[in-house]
Amino acid sequence: MFKPSLFQWRWTFALFILAPLAYASGGGATTIDFLWIAVLLLLAKFSSLIEKWGQPAVLGELLVGVLLGNLVLLGVLVFEPVKHDEIIKFLAELGVVILLFQIGLESNIDEMRKVGVRAFMVAVVGVVAPFGLGYWVGGLLMPELSTNALLFLGATLTATSVGITGRVFRDLGKLQTKEAQIVLGAAVIDDVMGLIILAVVTAIVMAPPGSGGISIGAISQISLIAVAFLAGALFLGQWIAPLIGKFLSKIHTGVGMKFTIAISFCLIFSYLAHLAGLAPIIGAFAAGLMLETVHFKSFSDPTINQEIKVAVAEANLKTRTKVDHVLEQHSERHLDNLMAPLGHFLVPIFFVVTGMQVDLTTLSDPKVVGIALAITAVAFIGKIVAGIVAGPGVNKYIVGWGMAPRGEVGLIFAMIGKGLGVMSEELFSIIIIMVILTTLLTPPILNYLLRQQKAA
Amino acid sequence: MFKPSLFQWRWTFALFILAPLAYASGGGATTIDFLWIAVLLLLAKFSSLIEKWGQPAVLGELLVGVLLGNLVLLGVLVFEPVKHDEIIKFLAELGVVILLFQIGLESNIDEMRKVGVRAFMVAVVGVVAPFGLGYWVGGLLMPELSTNALLFLGATLTATSVGITGRVFRDLGKLQTKEAQIVLGAAVIDDVMGLIILAVVTAIVMAPPGSGGISIGAISQISLIAVAFLAGALFLGQWIAPLIGKFLSKIHTGVGMKFTIAISFCLIFSYLAHLAGLAPIIGAFAAGLMLETVHFKSFSDPTINQEIKVAVAEANLKTRTKVDHVLEQHSERHLDNLMAPLGHFLVPIFFVVTGMQVDLTTLSDPKVVGIALAITAVAFIGKIVAGIVAGPGVNKYIVGWGMAPRGEVGLIFAMIGKGLGVMSEELFSIIIIMVILTTLLTPPILNYLLRQQKAA
Repeated sequence: MFKPSLFQWRWTFALFILAPLAYASGGGATTIDFLWIAVLLLLAKFSSLIEKWGQPAVLGELLVGVLLGNLVLLGVLVFEPVKHDEIIKFLAELGVVILLFQIGLESNIDEMRKVGVRAFMVAVVGVVAPFGLGYWVGGLLMPELSTNALLFLGATLTATSVGITGRVFRDLGKLQTKEAQIVLGAAVIDDVMGLIILAVVTAIVMAPPGSGGISIGAISQISLIAVAFLAGALFLGQWIAPLIGKFLSKIHTGVGMKFTIAISFCLIFSYLAHLAGLAPIIGAFAAGLMLETVHFKSFSDPTINQEIKVAVAEANLKTRTKVDHVLEQHSERHLDNLMAPLGHFLVPIFFVVTGMQVDLTTLSDPKVVGIALAITAVAFIGKIVAGIVAGPGVNKYIVGWGMAPRGEVGLIFAMIGKGLGVMSEELFSIIIIMVILTTLLTPPILNYLLRQQKAA
Repeated sequence: MFKPSLFQWRWTFALFILAPLAYASGGGATTIDFLWIAVLLLLAKFSSLIEKWGQPAVLGELLVGVLLGNLVLLGVLVFEPVKHDEIIKFLAELGVVILLFQIGLESNIDEMRKVGVRAFMVAVVGVVAPFGLGYWVGGLLMPELSTNALLFLGATLTATSVGITGRVFRDLGKLQTKEAQIVLGAAVIDDVMGLIILAVVTAIVMAPPGSGGISIGAISQISLIAVAFLAGALFLGQWIAPLIGKFLSKIHTGVGMKFTIAISFCLIFSYLAHLAGLAPIIGAFAAGLMLETVHFKSFSDPTINQEIKVAVAEANLKTRTKVDHVLEQHSERHLDNLMAPLGHFLVPIFFVVTGMQVDLTTLSDPKVVGIALAITAVAFIGKIVAGIVAGPGVNKYIVGWGMAPRGEVGLIFAMIGKGLGVMSEELFSIIIIMVILTTLLTPPILNYLLRQQKAA
């Protein structure tokens, strides 16, 4: 095959040609961003090695971000430019959009129906208890806080990071236990309730002074737009996406086209969501739901499948059937696989940049640290209380602790509060500490409880 | 499996939470770039359907760029912002870096040795004839041009787009013909000569007025830095990269780590090249050569291979051997496969943005068009003359026409001249027209000659 040398030389030429220009012009001003991206990715990926200790990779990425964002305290100014780099900021935004798109591609609405009454009970208590406790204790510890700030604190405490919770159970091989089922179902309902709570809280915060507080209109408008947008996308997905897939498979079968259509859907819907006044990630998630890979089955995968089929052509029927099954699954996962590298490239940037938002100087105030620990205790207690209503036949503590990690959901909450200007640096830091502690402490504790249960 | 629903709901929560924020803040200012990226990618990909007519995809992407860049002539201003969008500009830069990295990964230095004496002869004439003809005819047609501009015109005409030439032979299944071998070998040597020519021409242009013209120092410096950098990278690649690969395979076997290390190498070397005064793509190419996938064999591919091996476990030895062979090839290509989506995402942006640089208003001047056609004729004649020295036993016209397409190499030449300020809008447009015509007309002509030869 000549192809390699062809391309090699075409581009050897191009790069040598460009050399003098770069030499003359000093190169692009954005070249430094290449270095920043590489550094952020390497640090994020090596930090994800904490997975070996049962910790979620996202925690490592956040901690790296916290570290980089506060090196200035040690007189290391080298990472300061990253905080204000528009390119990095854009890549982070694109990263969370890609992540939501991937999640949408993996999503399955039918999972909802598996949620039982007990999970509902746990979810209700798991929202009410932390919210009430947070609002009350927060008011006691920080009387200077506004009602809006306390509302946001309470709302943040209702969060449950489904990803981290489920990840823990999965890592421990306990995903099929009754406790896990309840926790996962409750976390799902918890999420939906969290939406409503935050819509209300945000509406209260956004209500112009003297307007008489909550604007029901604003809440319902936000909710309606979001629901209508997703419903519309799902409708489109159900009826139009398969047709699009079939149409495209007729004019082109290349993986490149497949990828281009998918990513363009994601980006266009992100923009449409933005036009609808929603977050771009809503559009990305909707696009993911629309493009569940099943719609792309009509695309052929030109890479490995054919070679494999040829290789097993002479094998017996049983073997060929097995192989076809694997390849079938492979082709169904194919769109996810195509997106994975883009996710590896962009998603860590989002979490590292998020971590860089944490200002550790607020920790110099012992009061803040003390309050953070108290709020963290409240965060655990609120969810453990929820575990009590899990009903008979299950380990209530496993359920309660399983609801505890706030993860990136809590972080997003805090950033919204910060974005709306209701949250002081101190409160933001307190919440960050609470999120990190609930996320960091839960896995080992669950690990202990589950092994104890096994022993019993 | 609960995983999908987990992630679905974790992020359903997150996106609904973000909705009010977006609603309140109006969303990110860079959201519009999501739309631009999607539009550029879709147009580029659909334009690549011209492959069906035997045209290289890059031509379609360039033509789309030319179209978008000149819609303003029809009063369509919507794409004007893209021309000055820093985000798009960065993604284009990143795109060509990724492309060079991919080429480096595919590269094989041993291919050089296949180059014979006849190819050398064709290459020499294929450089001298177009350069001399271009300088002379250009001077006759455009007496107002400076010597520097004429030198750049001549240099541009020496280019050969190895990729497009080889692509044509490959599409026609003629890659193993004697003509193809000579053309490909000659194109390789042509590239190296082009480097030297451009280094000289650039040095002349950059020489400060009254400094007595060429600075031998500048030329040798540029060449030395480039060669030293690549040699150093190759040395590192040969000795250190395998160790790095082995080390990494010990601490982590994830595809994500594999991808992160690879892309980070690419970006860091791009930056190092920039520090060395070279173009970032030189570093990317060097990084690609360093990370030839063989160095990553020690990584395990956790995705499909294991499933396949299980599926064929009960098959006979012959089948299992065949399957193992396919999987082995698959794993060797794996790093390329990981990079492919990033390439699909970013590379088209580079070529579309490049095409947008073309200013068609210069075509309103009949003189420019006339000269462009004359220069195009010179471009063809110069290479056809080279075919005459191809020696006995081959179709000299096939060799000559095979050397004709300038492709993106010519474009990069022109952009360097523009960047150095020696090239007027008219000359730039003339060269663009020449590049497009030589790239567009060659495939059908070669197609005709090859079929005629077959008939004879």
